[in-house]
Amino acid sequence: MATIGAMPEIGGFRQKSRRLSTTWDEVKVYPIPAALYLVKNLLQADAPGYQILKNLNIISTGILYQIILKRKLTEIQWAAFILLCAGCTTAQLNPSSDHVLQAPLQGWVMAIVMALLSGFAGVYTEAIIKKRPSRNINVQNFWLYVFGMIFNAFAIMTQDFDAVMNDGFFHGYSLITVLMILNHALSGIAVSMVMKYADNIVKVYSTSVAMLLTAVVSVFLFGFHLSLAFFLGSTVVSVAIYLHSTSKARR
Amino acid sequence: MATIGAMPEIGGFRQKSRRLSTTWDEVKVYPIPAALYLVKNLLQADAPGYQILKNLNIISTGILYQIILKRKLTEIQWAAFILLCAGCTTAQLNPSSDHVLQAPLQGWVMAIVMALLSGFAGVYTEAIIKKRPSRNINVQNFWLYVFGMIFNAFAIMTQDFDAVMNDGFFHGYSLITVLMILNHALSGIAVSMVMKYADNIVKVYSTSVAMLLTAVVSVFLFGFHLSLAFFLGSTVVSVAIYLHSTSKARR
Repeated sequence: MATIGAMPEIGGFRQKSRRLSTTWDEVKVYPIPAALYLVKNLLQADAPGYQILKNLNIISTGILYQIILKRKLTEIQWAAFILLCAGCTTAQLNPSSDHVLQAPLQGWVMAIVMALLSGFAGVYTEAIIKKRPSRNINVQNFWLYVFGMIFNAFAIMTQDFDAVMNDGFFHGYSLITVLMILNHALSGIAVSMVMKYADNIVKVYSTSVAMLLTAVVSVFLFGFHLSLAFFLGSTVVSVAIYLHSTSKARR
Repeated sequence: MATIGAMPEIGGFRQKSRRLSTTWDEVKVYPIPAALYLVKNLLQADAPGYQILKNLNIISTGILYQIILKRKLTEIQWAAFILLCAGCTTAQLNPSSDHVLQAPLQGWVMAIVMALLSGFAGVYTEAIIKKRPSRNINVQNFWLYVFGMIFNAFAIMTQDFDAVMNDGFFHGYSLITVLMILNHALSGIAVSMVMKYADNIVKVYSTSVAMLLTAVVSVFLFGFHLSLAFFLGSTVVSVAIYLHSTSKARR
């Protein structure tokens, strides 16, 4: 990309050939985030405390964001990022959270590998989408999801071949299933927009705020009780957002 | 004090009368923190969750520090102070902490009154000790504790008169009691030094760090188990200390 971008643009032929080669360059990187997300989803366990360890994503995203996208976070912004991770984890504390501390070494290695995979997938997607700012976001999404579909079809074939053959692909789909798929699809488009017009840091903050807002909404919809830990975690997350934004404004 | 300080210093007589009246000025304010601490100690309840609500002291100290001592905290320092309060509370979370949220209104009012009393006593003590920077700290401590002793003797007389009369004042004193009194006395001198050479903000931070260190030492001495909440709270407190110190350096 760097060498192609540095080429002098002389005449229609060069212009045209550049566009063609760019498209191949463009498409060939799209399978990478799709593969990363697939591996992450296959590894994903519902082990107790996984929800807690998932917050390591925040730190791994920050580190990979700096290394791969070569964008600097200020010291205050790093402090805010650590607070965001601690605040989200605090908000999710429950009586069984302490089991995380007794997790075996493999559990921790797994959690760190998952966090790195997830962070790398996010940062790589941003790099791909930002590489060509003028490219239509729907075209970019199309390529991202084409490879996502191919890889996931492969995973379905290896894992659930018999079930799909016997009962059909759409067996067990209810209205809720369809609504959840629609919700995931819309979330995916929203995330792509955040990647294109903002960045992974904004994505991490908005995901965290979404988690807190979901809990608050659940109080009214489902009669959830908010814990003291939730209030403390929300306070820490709020201060983190404040610190992140003031530090940016000062630069 | 302000008017006396503004008087022209002419001759030995003026000098001498000024010194005498200053001393009276000085002594007459010492009963105030003694009375405040007494009221606070008498109100102090061992209700569940009181330990949690005690962290409101941090916020009340910050507010009264700004109002009474007229010293400014930067916005980042305020953010750090809120984090300190949230972090300490998080570190102290235990399975019964959520009861605090169900506390009746009187409980909350009481906790806020206690926090204001405690904060006011601390800030007032700092104002007294700092008013005369050249005055020996032991003399200042002497006056602070003379009134403390008078007021507490009065409290003992009204609350435990019969017990003291029947069994004597030192009934039930063990080696541990004596060591605890010694510990409290040394702590008192240390706090006075912090008030004289630093301020209430430093006192609040050092009290918080002491609380965390006590928990860590208890792991080795008494086999305590540290909770995930403790690690999260300690992380938040550490970031708060970092933010407080960087913000100061920038001014």
